[in-house]
Amino acid sequence: MLFQNPTFLGAIASTLLLSTSFVQGVCLHNHRRNLQAGPGSVPISNFSYIGVTGPLGWAGLDPANVKCSTANVQSPINIEHGVVPPSPTNPQLSIPDVLSAEFENLGSTVEVVINGTTIFEGKTYTLKQYHFHTPAEHLIDGQFYPMEVHFVNIASDGSILVLAALFELSPFGTNENFLYPLLAPLYAITKPGSSTTTGPLIFSDITYLFNILPLFKYTGSLTTPPCTDGVIFLVANSFLPISLEAFLQFKNVLKFNARYVQNAPGEENLVEVAAGQLPK
Amino acid sequence: MLFQNPTFLGAIASTLLLSTSFVQGVCLHNHRRNLQAGPGSVPISNFSYIGVTGPLGWAGLDPANVKCSTANVQSPINIEHGVVPPSPTNPQLSIPDVLSAEFENLGSTVEVVINGTTIFEGKTYTLKQYHFHTPAEHLIDGQFYPMEVHFVNIASDGSILVLAALFELSPFGTNENFLYPLLAPLYAITKPGSSTTTGPLIFSDITYLFNILPLFKYTGSLTTPPCTDGVIFLVANSFLPISLEAFLQFKNVLKFNARYVQNAPGEENLVEVAAGQLPK
Repeated sequence: MLFQNPTFLGAIASTLLLSTSFVQGVCLHNHRRNLQAGPGSVPISNFSYIGVTGPLGWAGLDPANVKCSTANVQSPINIEHGVVPPSPTNPQLSIPDVLSAEFENLGSTVEVVINGTTIFEGKTYTLKQYHFHTPAEHLIDGQFYPMEVHFVNIASDGSILVLAALFELSPFGTNENFLYPLLAPLYAITKPGSSTTTGPLIFSDITYLFNILPLFKYTGSLTTPPCTDGVIFLVANSFLPISLEAFLQFKNVLKFNARYVQNAPGEENLVEVAAGQLPK
Repeated sequence: MLFQNPTFLGAIASTLLLSTSFVQGVCLHNHRRNLQAGPGSVPISNFSYIGVTGPLGWAGLDPANVKCSTANVQSPINIEHGVVPPSPTNPQLSIPDVLSAEFENLGSTVEVVINGTTIFEGKTYTLKQYHFHTPAEHLIDGQFYPMEVHFVNIASDGSILVLAALFELSPFGTNENFLYPLLAPLYAITKPGSSTTTGPLIFSDITYLFNILPLFKYTGSLTTPPCTDGVIFLVANSFLPISLEAFLQFKNVLKFNARYVQNAPGEENLVEVAAGQLPK
């Protein structure tokens, strides 16, 4: 189930577009680049969203993270209709349905490990995983949303393509179908470092969302360390529904894992802007 | 209606503590310090929450805003139980109920102009207004919440006392009583610079919340320019309920007006932390 062009409350009640199904995974960042040993069965991230290990301290955690503070193409951004252009073409995303998949709490997010293939602008990418941010990282026309999912794809030349979709709270208490097989398992991975398996995952909704419906396109970065730039973002111009109950469940586990909105692509990194305003 | 000690979903269904009533206003920041001419009947703020006029650019908007980037006591913060102490005493807040009050869209927030008196630690403050942030600015044990209200009090010597309360979405679709008289008027001030009047405001819930129930206390700052430090914050250790419908209505107007979480009080300003990590 999807609803499109959500403007004000009317949006919430707008057209349900899809019939049945679940998720697909192209995740935004390669979390394994910034992992350290954790207490559970999977390693946990060495960065956070608060204080000196939070977004304004990421560059200090590792010299490899310098782009977090210096690159002028960073994500997330405020996506304004009429400013961020629609993607001229849709990707061709293909994900085999699975009976279950690995579901991990990395401390910085919860992530489903999945395989798939995405073809976009003549290049073939491998889908690695998808994960969640709450609240959503991108703003839409300046407004925040409760959650966002990132499906990260990587090509053999190292190029990264992220397929992103934002959620809005459903007045009908419904969830995008792909969330349902995650809800019971989510209770098993409330602690960073823990992992479990999902229920059966069907990806036809997600395939439809990214392969058929309108998308925004811009070049940004990983939204987590090392903030690698040159990442292609395709962001759905439709919201996925999430129930209040599911949102509160995700929020209780993820707590807060959204990087602050970056300057517009091509503009100076906001850390450099802020540093330039400090007293000499 | 209030609910307390919200831990996970159980919190949502926890005890309803108060009976009937509305709001009181001690607002966090003196918005009028940073206003410029707007299109409507009230002036609008010259700062934003995005890009170079957003939180990382506030110090560059006016030399008077330097503390936003340099002070080591800034708000909002992550309030951790066991780290941020409870307030040893409660304030004595008194607000006359009113038939209506001025309700303004300043661009940076929506604000109710109100009068009242707060006595705290032997000092008498005048309540000036209350306003809203969405999402909430403070985190509680690392978790974000959908909305926050700030009642700003100012003493004759210029001291500022902010009474703050966070909202959580209600599974019952109920609102803290003081929100109801704002909902219809809120439709009249969706544009920055516009103003209207509220319905009748009764403040017994808010008086009970701040005068009787447990509060956190810390010294922070205005969360908006000029980020004046030395502000006493009393933050309710209870959540106010907000319905999904009311939340979406506020969010559609406010869009996103939460400053990023600052370093712990006394620790280096995160802008200076980030600047110190830039390549030499």
